Formats: sequence, structure tokens, C-alpha cells
Amino acid sequence: MYEDRSMNVRTPDPYPGWLSEEDLYEARQRLPMLYVEAIPVRLDPLGYVNEVGLLLTGDDDGRMLRTFVSGRVMYRETIRAALIRHIEKDLGTMVLPQLPASPVPFTVAEYFPAPSETGLTDDRQHAVSMCYIVPVRGESTPRQDALELTWLTPAEALSSDIQGAFAGGRENILRQALAHVGINI
Amino acid sequence: MYEDRSMNVRTPDPYPGWLSEEDLYEARQRLPMLYVEAIPVRLDPLGYVNEVGLLLTGDDDGRMLRTFVSGRVMYRETIRAALIRHIEKDLGTMVLPQLPASPVPFTVAEYFPAPSETGLTDDRQHAVSMCYIVPVRGESTPRQDALELTWLTPAEALSSDIQGAFAGGRENILRQALAHVGINI
Amino acid sequence: MYEDRSMNVRTPDPYPGWLSEEDLYEARQRLPMLYVEAIPVRLDPLGYVNEVGLLLTGDDDGRMLRTFVSGRVMYRETIRAALIRHIEKDLGTMVLPQLPASPVPFTVAEYFPAPSETGLTDDRQHAVSMCYIVPVRGESTPRQDALELTWLTPAEALSSDIQGAFAGGRENILRQALAHVGINI
Amino acid sequence: MYEDRSMNVRTPDPYPGWLSEEDLYEARQRLPMLYVEAIPVRLDPLGYVNEVGLLLTGDDDGRMLRTFVSGRVMYRETIRAALIRHIEKDLGTMVLPQLPASPVPFTVAEYFPAPSETGLTDDRQHAVSMCYIVPVRGESTPRQDALELTWLTPAEALSSDIQGAFAGGRENILRQALAHVGINI
Repeated sequence: MYEDRSMNVRTPDPYPGWLSEEDLYEARQRLPMLYVEAIPVRLDPLGYVNEVGLLLTGDDDGRMLRTFVSGRVMYRETIRAALIRHIEKDLGTMVLPQLPASPVPFTVAEYFPAPSETGLTDDRQHAVSMCYIVPVRGESTPRQDALELTWLTPAEALSSDIQGAFAGGRENILRQALAHVGINI
Repeated sequence: MYEDRSMNVRTPDPYPGWLSEEDLYEARQRLPMLYVEAIPVRLDPLGYVNEVGLLLTGDDDGRMLRTFVSGRVMYRETIRAALIRHIEKDLGTMVLPQLPASPVPFTVAEYFPAPSETGLTDDRQHAVSMCYIVPVRGESTPRQDALELTWLTPAEALSSDIQGAFAGGRENILRQALAHVGINI
Repeated sequence: MYEDRSMNVRTPDPYPGWLSEEDLYEARQRLPMLYVEAIPVRLDPLGYVNEVGLLLTGDDDGRMLRTFVSGRVMYRETIRAALIRHIEKDLGTMVLPQLPASPVPFTVAEYFPAPSETGLTDDRQHAVSMCYIVPVRGESTPRQDALELTWLTPAEALSSDIQGAFAGGRENILRQALAHVGINI
Repeated sequence: MYEDRSMNVRTPDPYPGWLSEEDLYEARQRLPMLYVEAIPVRLDPLGYVNEVGLLLTGDDDGRMLRTFVSGRVMYRETIRAALIRHIEKDLGTMVLPQLPASPVPFTVAEYFPAPSETGLTDDRQHAVSMCYIVPVRGESTPRQDALELTWLTPAEALSSDIQGAFAGGRENILRQALAHVGINI
């Protein structure tokens, strides 16, 4: 969700897409933007979630924020291709993600530029995000300018310290993800 | 889950099924029992959950407990037939439930007679329960010996008072249900 | 999916949204468009699908086509609000839809302006559609210029006549919907 | 579903469980039996299903049948433990399955000893089966007495030859699985 370079919370998008920055700014005032979000997890052999991968970023005021792998779906790009592109951008190409066999997300997150009934906000735009839990088997190898990835147990991820470090209501997406996999939240 | 009459937390099952009490006791020591659970909800026209219906029961020690519509699937009974049977038993025949079009539950709850990795327990048995959210449009008309139904807002249902009144870890099922419908828990 | 008036397969959108026709045309060349699709169904008391509601439309060549309730999500509009708006536009305000308690669609349909791995096409745009099954209890009261709604049994909807009358691969969405509710397709 | 040795369609269960053969026979006349079924798949890096693994077995009349990894959930066994046990029994320990992070099955299959509204039958019992799609990365190494595993493309698995080789209506479970992962069936 943090693609705006002026916010300095995200690596530059290596695929600038088909819109100029100006046109993209215009579109964001008038159309919902389609996003994907991925919550990387490490599973034990029985499929229980051992660890959740959260990105650590900073906003303009130097506050540290937690966030997910996230980014826009480009014109003529499939959701799966967008997912793998953003995962590789943030986690590197050695992370060995297992993309879901089904295209159905565990939730659909609706972010609005002003408070709304969904409780999710994004200053820049109206964004609708397909959210997926993505098991990974490899190691993350972030690029030099990339975000830091932290692996946390579900209990750590649910602690008030971590829950309070999300922006825009995203901590609710994490809680929904953990509820979806059967963790007692 | 509370069919044992000695526990006095549930109305007698009007369909005793094909097992004597003694045989059922034996089976419960040796096989997982298949259950259904229904969380009745009232929806607004957009599908947002306005209210959740929770049953109020008492255990042998006079402690009041919260629980769901719940009961066993009988031999040769479909899950849908078991759902409607238990809903009518606990909520009456005027409650106008809307059974789900899909047979896929929002979660599968595994109760064990001893603490386990699922965090859900049932003294009497190993029970595996298909859990459904069931919108209702009518009024509950409990039978004279029936349990009390209370309608609560999601915020009330998530309050510590109510969350602490469930037994066997069932408060987690409720939280998973609310997360599933997109409520920020 | 058929909002282009020149195609004459859809009633005019009573909510023109925040984009001029020209701007919308431009955006469609450069961004994925977010859509919702609803398949109205009539359920029996146990939740089994008795009937599926399909719209009948005509294309420019006078060929009759089957389609679903479908339309764009507007800027700052929730998915639920878009669903109810398009349902009322196509089926009237007396149809008494039961919007789903959960925002998770039964499938996410990705339409591309050229053949792709999804098998779904839309000449005009790259559209990503959240697809929902929506039980209705009332009667459809189409507006004078509205599309015809036909109620079909699942077997009729799966017949080769009907399956062959969809465009863009939408018959697959219908088959996925019926599989999702447990119908043997 | 083929545990009965007299049918000679399944390897002996290495975990006989807590019921004698006789007691199990009795229970099967009076209680629904809880099963798990797994459809092993090979995914490409984007998560698309490249291949489906089907078991080849023979019935008493020497007819060859297609079936899934399938078996009973034992007393005090979690669904995940039952899944991995049956996968290892039928596919060996080198198949490297990725058990699902979520306990929610893609469908719940209800088999009855006589024709019913579900269209699924099992001569021996009323069985309720949680069905999962399980990506595997390794090689199957069947035990000497094990069933043959065949890897088929989705198109091959949907061919009338293969579809006609299932018993009890299980071809519908396969079609539901493929619909769930977004394949046009």
C-alpha cells in the first residue's frame, strides 16, 4: 500500500506499469485500485503456522510501521503474477513461495481515503486488496534498498506491541488471517 | 455439545437416534463424533452482521455458560438436516433460518477430551464440528424447557464478560466467525 | 460486464460514477477495472439451490446472450454497496436479496481483452470480478428497459443450450458456482 | 473409502485404531464415520495446477477404479494427523506434502449407504469426508502392497474415460476440486 516514494516506506516499483505518475495520481482520485496482499508464513509438516513474516518500514515521521507484502495489480497482469512479483520484490527470489492453488482470498480488504464501515484506511486512494496467506520454504534475501522482514510466532504477532505498529487498520487483516488458519486469537 | 442430561445444560434430544444411551457412551470412548454448530446472526440489508445469537445455559455447578446451537449428526442424516433439526430444537420453528448454499463450514472445530493443539475441549468425547454462520429473519420461540437466546452486537459478543462465559474454548469459534465475516476483532 | 451502450446488451447505468465516458475509456486501456458479479439463486429450506437466475440480453448482432448481474465498483463504494446497487438495477427493489455475511467471493474472475490463462475474455477491458452467490426471496420486477431474468433449475442451467449462450467464458463461472454449492456438475 | 479388506481395493491400515473389526462393523451401522480425503496436486510456480494424482485400485470383480487418498479419522486424532497418515500410507514418506494452513476443506462429501440427495454412495457406511487439495513436491514411493498413483493433467482427469472410472460418485468431488482452483471444467 506504500508505493508513494515521498512517503519513503517502500522500495521503488521495478515495474512502473502503464501509467505515468501523474496519470496514476489522477486515477487514484476516481477509481478503486486493485491490490494484492500476501502474508508469508512458515508451516510445520502438519500445516500449522509456526511463524508469520512481517515487513518493517518507516514513515515520513520516522515512525516504524509493520506491513505486509503488498502492491498494485497492473493492467493485463493476473493476480497470481502480481502476487509473485510483489513477493520477489520484497522477499527476494530465494524465498520459495507456495502460491495458493485457489484464487479465492482469505479476505477482501477495502481501504478508503476516509474512515468507513470497513475500518481500513489509505490516505492516497480507494484500494481493494485480495489477501492471501503464502507459505514459504526458502530464505528471504532482501535487496539492498528493501524492507526488513521479521519472522514472528503467532503469539508474538498478536502482542499489543506488534498490533499497535500497523497503520490503516491492517492489524485486523493479520488477525483475520490467523483466525482463518484456526489459531485462537 | 451438551447433550448429556446429567449435565443439565441442554434440552432432551427429541430424536434419540439409533444408539442406546449405553452404546452411545461406548462409541464416544472410541470414535470421533460428528457435530454441527450454528451461530445465528441477524444481517442488515448489505449483509453486515448486526447481531449474534448466543444461548445461555447452566452447568451442574449453577454456573451460567454461553454456547451455540449445536448437536450430533445422526446416522443417515445429512449435515443440512442436522443443522435445521438443531436450530429448530433450540430456536423454535418460527426463526426462519437461511441455511448456507454451500456445505463448506467457516471452520472445523476439533474438541478433545484432554488439552490438545486445537485448544478446544469436551470432557465427554472427541467431537469434530462443522461450524456455520446462519442468518435468521424470524423470531425465536423457545420451547418451555429450552435455553435462553440472547442477541448481542458483535462488540458485546467480543466483550470480556461474554468471552469469559464460554466453556471448552468455544469463545475462539465465535471470534473466528466474526473474523470470517470481516468484523475487526 | 456489458456497460458499453453501443453493445446494446445492458441497461444504462443509473449511477454514471465519477468518470466521464471518455476518461473511463482511457482508464480501461491502462488499469484493471474492479467488478462484482452476482448469481441470484432460490434456495429450499435446507439451503439446496432450487433455481438459478440468469439474465437474457442481446448483442449488436442480435444474438441472445446469457449473463449475470454484473457491474463496476465505483470510487469510494464498498463491494456490498456495489452488489446491492447492481442487483436492484437488474432485478428491481422487490427481489429481497440476502447479501453474504462474508466478503469472501466464491471465485475471483479475471477477464482480459485477449485470450489468457484464465480463459475469460472481455473485449473492452481487463476486469477483475468478485463473484457471489446471492439467495433471493422476493420477485424480480425489472424496469421497463431492463433485461429479462429467467429462473432455471441447476440441470437446465448446465444444459448445452444454456452453457453455449454465455460470452467470454462466463459459463465457467456458473459451473464453478454450482460446484461450490455442492451440485454435481 | 476402501478399507474393507474383503473388497481388496486398499492396502491394510497400518493403524488399526481402537475398534476391533467387529465393533467397527457395528459402529458403521449406527454412526456417521468421519473421513478425510486428499487430492494430491503438482503446482507450477504461480500456483496453477499442472497435475492431479489419482490412485488406481481394483474391486472384487477385477474392475479398475480411480480413487483419492482417503481414510478414517481415528479417536483422539486431529484431522491434520489423519491427513498426513493417509498420505504417507498411500504415497510414501518422500512425497513432501504441503498440508493446508487452513482447516477448512474445499468441500464436505457426504456418502450414504443408499442413494441420497448428495449423489454420493458408500455401500459400507455413512461417511462424512473433509476433502482437501494437497500440493506435493516430492516423489511418491508406494509400499510394495500399495496402490498405483497416476499423475494426470486436469484435462486428462476430466476426460470421460477417467471420470467413468470412479465409484460412488467421487468423480464429482474431483470436478469440485478443479472448479475450486479456478480450472474451467
